[in-house]
Order: sequence, then structure tokens, then C-alpha cells
Amino acid sequence: MIHNDTIDKQLAHRSIRAFKDQSLTKEELTTLYQVASHTSTSNFHQQFSIIHVTDPKVREKIRQISNQDYVGANGDLLIFIVDLYRNQQIRKQMGNDDGRLHTMDVFMEAVEDTTLAVQNVLVAAESMGLGGVILGSIKNDPAQLIKVLDLPKMTMPWLGLQVGHPDQEPQLKPRLPLDLVAFEDHYPKDFKLDQFKDYDSHVTQYYDLRDTNKRIDSFTNQINGPKLNDQMSKRDDINEVLFNQGLAMG
Amino acid sequence: MIHNDTIDKQLAHRSIRAFKDQSLTKEELTTLYQVASHTSTSNFHQQFSIIHVTDPKVREKIRQISNQDYVGANGDLLIFIVDLYRNQQIRKQMGNDDGRLHTMDVFMEAVEDTTLAVQNVLVAAESMGLGGVILGSIKNDPAQLIKVLDLPKMTMPWLGLQVGHPDQEPQLKPRLPLDLVAFEDHYPKDFKLDQFKDYDSHVTQYYDLRDTNKRIDSFTNQINGPKLNDQMSKRDDINEVLFNQGLAMG
Repeated sequence: MIHNDTIDKQLAHRSIRAFKDQSLTKEELTTLYQVASHTSTSNFHQQFSIIHVTDPKVREKIRQISNQDYVGANGDLLIFIVDLYRNQQIRKQMGNDDGRLHTMDVFMEAVEDTTLAVQNVLVAAESMGLGGVILGSIKNDPAQLIKVLDLPKMTMPWLGLQVGHPDQEPQLKPRLPLDLVAFEDHYPKDFKLDQFKDYDSHVTQYYDLRDTNKRIDSFTNQINGPKLNDQMSKRDDINEVLFNQGLAMG
Repeated sequence: MIHNDTIDKQLAHRSIRAFKDQSLTKEELTTLYQVASHTSTSNFHQQFSIIHVTDPKVREKIRQISNQDYVGANGDLLIFIVDLYRNQQIRKQMGNDDGRLHTMDVFMEAVEDTTLAVQNVLVAAESMGLGGVILGSIKNDPAQLIKVLDLPKMTMPWLGLQVGHPDQEPQLKPRLPLDLVAFEDHYPKDFKLDQFKDYDSHVTQYYDLRDTNKRIDSFTNQINGPKLNDQMSKRDDINEVLFNQGLAMG
């Protein structure tokens, strides 16, 4: 293993879900925005935006959508937006039509721009001694979230980042061993349950040893469990909401 | 602005498209894989995989799909896979059905897992003095790429990363000013073309001053230009290919 400050922090990544009652400084925020803006972007189209949510009422509403008490609480809440609106406006004001902006292909490029920026910002935050957690939960009710943030068509709030000064030191959560994730030339189609046995016991030990929210669980039990079992929720509105936003239409 | 080694490298990010004739060491590769595996993952589902492509014939075929001469040439080629197959196999062998694995919602979570990992790996590579470029171009012919990589259903090759020892020092490409990208509470729906004028001239100057492939161009001209104009290509097969792979079906 190669070590340096950056990599050591990356290998020590834990999602932080408890923050001190201290907001980021203007300088910290600007640094995170600069890092976001210097992230790789597909075809130089720069199709994402960030909203820093400070309004307590809006924070409260997003917390309700996410159903996680740390969302919009201590620390700062950033919402990363898949943004095809800005480029649509440019084309419009230059007298052009929307071209490919409504396609699945260009939407996915914008999703990539947005998601790459989220990770880059989280790495920067952790390098400063801050902590954070990426919030997929903001999409628990996508139509409501668009309303709460008063967003126009051709945008889609994609991921949140709750970031701040850590008020916890969670244990490192064990990840799948590399021989089940990274392959040389050939993707193995013959996974056997047995191969997950050692990893399962590491995960079980992790849950048993952690300070809060102890439980008996394994990786394969979670994959086989309720979160991935058949059920419908407002999360499945995503298809309709994207269509209504004019995105990923074909 | 806050500065440290990590952030300074992030702010100095340039995509590298020319590499020395030197492959990554086993230790470098393993470090990158470890960083990938420690990236945030939605619901702990760990739904991505990496294929390190070393077979010259496969590299050649991916280069043809990407239509970029540096793909699969000097350096190393990593393909990041949206992977719902591994978890499908776990559920199957535990006697369960596929549950939510075919939904758009879970597919998007896997896309997020995959894309976050790509950025984390690129940051790690750059921290070691390596360089890289994220390849959306591998999806120029998604059906063919799946065939070339011999991937099963429930997987989708998503982004490539060509990584290695830089053999060029490109200029920093100017990004949109923060006041057009990062907002406090309210997303501005009233972008005016005028607001992009200064930035356009920075971009024009960048193209004029750079060493190779000089051209006269601006940001708004690119957004208004051929890449986003109406046209169909094999990139638009993505919807059909995802459906055939059993992914993002509703």
C-alpha cells in the first residue's frame, strides 16, 4: 500500500452523522465550492449546481423528506443539483433549440458531473478535518424536494451532503474484499455464497463492537433483506418526476 | 481559500491524455482499489466493480469504441462497472427473488456508488503524482462494450479511467465562476447571457494560449454547438441496453 495524507484520509473514510453546533466559515465553504468546480466534467458541459441550504424552514422540510434527524441540523447542508437548466437557457438565449438536453445520454452525463463533484467535495472536507455524509435520502420524495427547493424544469436535486465538525468517531466499516470487487480482464460470473463467508463475519463483528446501534447482521443478510425486497415507495416516483422535469426522456 | 496537499492537488486537476510507456505497479493498483472500496456506498450495498483491462485485443476494441487514441494505450485502463449482478447472485443463492434490483431507484444508487468511486480513485492517483482522464466515451457503443467485456446481465460498464505517468502538462481549464454554480438557498432562474461574457473570454484565452489543438471557442458557443445539437448516435442505445441488461426498468 502506498501512503500519503490524501490516501490515508481516503482509507479512513467514515460517514459522519453527528456534528458540533458550528457552521462552516465562508472560507471553508468557498474552498469546497472551488474544489467542486474543478472536478472533471463530461464534455466540458459543467452540468451541476450546488445549493447551500441555510433557511431553517427548508432544512426542516428536507429533514422530513430524508427522515434522518441529522439532515439540516448541526453543520451545513449542501444539495447537489443535476443542472441542465443553465445550458438550456444559454441555448435559448442564443436562439437555438434544446437539442440533446432531454436525452437519457446527456442526463447521465450530468448525473456523472454532479456525483463526481460530491465525492471531490467530501474528500476536500475530510482533508480539512471536517466530516460528512452523502445523502441519497433526499430523493425519498423527489417531487416534494423540487417544490421545497423551488427548482425549475431541467434540474433535479441529486445528492445531499451534510458536512461539519465531527462530534463522533465511528469505527471503520469493513468493505468487500478486493477479490470480490476488482478483477483482471475477466468479470467472474460464478460468485458463490461461500466466498462471502469471511467478510460476513467481519461485518457481524463490526456491528457487535460498535458503540451505538449494535445489531447482529451480516452483509449477505442485508442484501437479502428488506431494503432490497419488493416494495414501492415515493422513491419510485423518480421516473415520473424526471419525465416531468424534462429529463432522461429517451 | 484553505490550502493543504489534498486541496491544492484538487484545484490543480487537469485531465491527462498523454502517458509515459510505464504501467502502474501492483502496489499502485492495489492502493487505488482500496481507495475505491472505501468510498461511500448507498445503503452499504457496494454496487460497483472494477475491471483492469490488460488484454491488448480488448484494449484495442475499447479504444475503437471510445474513438480516442489514448484509451487503452500507455498507462492502465480501468473500467468501472455498475454492478447489481453480485447482489442478485447473493439473493438468488439465499433463495430470494431479485426484489428491487431492477428498479430505476436502485440502479441510480449503483450509478452513484460507481461514480463516487471513480472520483475517489482519480484523487488518489493524482496524490501519488499519477494523472488520469475519466472516460465517458466508453459508452459510445454500450451494447458492443458489454460484449467486448463479456459482462452478464445486471451489470453496466459506466465510466473508464485511463491512468498513468503523465507525459504532458496541460494548462488549467477555467471553470464557470462560482456565482453561476453555487447558490445560497435560492436557485436563480433568470440567468442572462451577459453573465457568461467574462467567463467566455477566459475560455477563449485558454484555447488561444494552450500548446496543442489551439482553437477559437467560448463556453457558450460550445453549449450552443454540435455536441448538444440534435443528432442520434449509438450513445442513445443506452435506454435499450439498460433494459436488455435488466436495469432501470421502472
